[in-house]
Amino acid sequence: MRITAPDDFHVHLRQAPLLQGIVRDTAHVFERVLVMPNTDPPIVSAELLENYRAEIDAALASGQRLSTLMTFKLLSSLDPETLPALKEAGAVGGKLYPAGVTTNSEDGVRDVRSISPQLEMMQELGLVLEVHGESPNGFVLDREAEFLPDLEWIVTTFPSLRVVLEHVTSAAAVHALERMPERVGATITVHHLLITLDDVIGGKIRPHLFCKPVAKREADREELLAAVFGGSGRFFFGSDSAPHPVSEKEASCGCAGVYTAPVAMSVLAELFEDHGVPLSEDDRKETDATSLERFTSRDGAAFYGLERNTGILDLAEEEWVVPASYGTVVPFRAGKILRYKAKKEGGNEP
Amino acid sequence: MRITAPDDFHVHLRQAPLLQGIVRDTAHVFERVLVMPNTDPPIVSAELLENYRAEIDAALASGQRLSTLMTFKLLSSLDPETLPALKEAGAVGGKLYPAGVTTNSEDGVRDVRSISPQLEMMQELGLVLEVHGESPNGFVLDREAEFLPDLEWIVTTFPSLRVVLEHVTSAAAVHALERMPERVGATITVHHLLITLDDVIGGKIRPHLFCKPVAKREADREELLAAVFGGSGRFFFGSDSAPHPVSEKEASCGCAGVYTAPVAMSVLAELFEDHGVPLSEDDRKETDATSLERFTSRDGAAFYGLERNTGILDLAEEEWVVPASYGTVVPFRAGKILRYKAKKEGGNEP
Repeated sequence: MRITAPDDFHVHLRQAPLLQGIVRDTAHVFERVLVMPNTDPPIVSAELLENYRAEIDAALASGQRLSTLMTFKLLSSLDPETLPALKEAGAVGGKLYPAGVTTNSEDGVRDVRSISPQLEMMQELGLVLEVHGESPNGFVLDREAEFLPDLEWIVTTFPSLRVVLEHVTSAAAVHALERMPERVGATITVHHLLITLDDVIGGKIRPHLFCKPVAKREADREELLAAVFGGSGRFFFGSDSAPHPVSEKEASCGCAGVYTAPVAMSVLAELFEDHGVPLSEDDRKETDATSLERFTSRDGAAFYGLERNTGILDLAEEEWVVPASYGTVVPFRAGKILRYKAKKEGGNEP
Repeated sequence: MRITAPDDFHVHLRQAPLLQGIVRDTAHVFERVLVMPNTDPPIVSAELLENYRAEIDAALASGQRLSTLMTFKLLSSLDPETLPALKEAGAVGGKLYPAGVTTNSEDGVRDVRSISPQLEMMQELGLVLEVHGESPNGFVLDREAEFLPDLEWIVTTFPSLRVVLEHVTSAAAVHALERMPERVGATITVHHLLITLDDVIGGKIRPHLFCKPVAKREADREELLAAVFGGSGRFFFGSDSAPHPVSEKEASCGCAGVYTAPVAMSVLAELFEDHGVPLSEDDRKETDATSLERFTSRDGAAFYGLERNTGILDLAEEEWVVPASYGTVVPFRAGKILRYKAKKEGGNEP
């Protein structure tokens, strides 16, 4: 099975010493990725952005290619006048983290109204706003729903700003999105399509399935599946692949994030197949609303106004066992048998 | 400050090699404890019960005393004719674990109706039924509420059986209890009075605050506080102190249970004081509905039809830092400063 090589519109590539392994795992499967800016220090200037991209490029194995769509971190303190230079340096979007909602977000935004000048400038420049849509206060399972009024305020106040609600997890968010204009899209991760909070804390506690936003109820998961399989085009793939070394996951206090890059396409291929949804556009019949290829390799590019990737992803029907770890990072589905092996043509083994 | 030495109507004393440290920590503060039977193998015969009690007694430090109220594990396979012998060996109650809800409960009960003969016999013998009140299926936050119809069935079907709903965590359970006859009581832990799910997974993930039932919302916690401070007498103290070695807590898959024995009385003293509720009955005014002494040293004993303890607990106003660990176990509030030091008079340092 061959499909257009996929995009991942939400990845954390981290920094050294993790960076090299993560970049190579990612480039093995993905042709283009939207790189999150919550590094330490955060990406808040053209220079930092260019340096980070150079580090990523230098981390690739010989012969590997990875197209990096860069983002900057939206802070209340960020001078709007720096945004043209960020765009010129290659930024396609800016990421809004409400303060304290996830890894390295302590410096995030306390009130979305405080970044109006930056949002105004982003709208003018055609930059996309990527949003971690959780209210920093409130009960952990309600935070996404409680953020929706802020999202609506942004969408209404900036009438031509393109906005992506990242890693949606709740039926409430899916329904809110569907009522919004088409310039508002959303990414959906592979893990939120597969797990609920019961998988995280319903039996024993499983830190490697712990992420922000936390997985919700089965009814929420079903709405996410319906959104993906509905083929509206506004729900596209962003893995939120977010590795942490095992020492920072399995401890008295563990970080949020699931590392999915090496398994995402294999897991998605099984999921789509199990739901009777074709993998490639070539195999899509009139009665099929969508395909895996559309979810991972077409709809996101169209939303961002980008050309489709020219590379190919080979999805071979070949069982393999997910390694217990990639370097110091435990991946999603560690130790499980997957039935598709995903490899980008032209990429090298990581 | 001196109060009647406390009871703990729900403890896990575990087995060697953990047993000795746990028993000594517990005997340092508590005069009498209700011992849970979910050992491996479980306590399901008079012989096993007597052996376990002997092991506990042998684990005490020289000069320490701990009165053990023993329980057995209610299994569908347990012959009701063994119950008189269990009572004779010293069992005061039998513990119902629905299958799979917590540590060592894989052999638990799948349908409460399947243990009618055992419940009938317990009622006849005057044994108390202790219930882990969670439905084994369903969403993790709903399991306690979903078990309530089963509880109501038990209470209605066995009209003179005394029943304790253990470690209640939800407003739904508190309200259901309040509508039931007075022979139905409930234990409340110290950690469920202090934490919500936000403390477990709202920031980073904290395995040492992970327990079953999982902590719920702030509104649930407030109902638990109201139940305790209301002084109805039917909500009494059971810590569910449930130690696991750090290696079984901080791993890719961690066990449920919070170790509170060494800190429970100190933490409760602060909590009651911070809410303006007196610690001792001597200090209780007419306007005070209850006291810490009532919660930990009177109401449970009255429910079980037992004499009050004769020992004294000294609650000294003396700051101390909770150790990072007791042996291999990380306690609740590790590293925190507490302002009351609790020590049972006549007990030895563990």
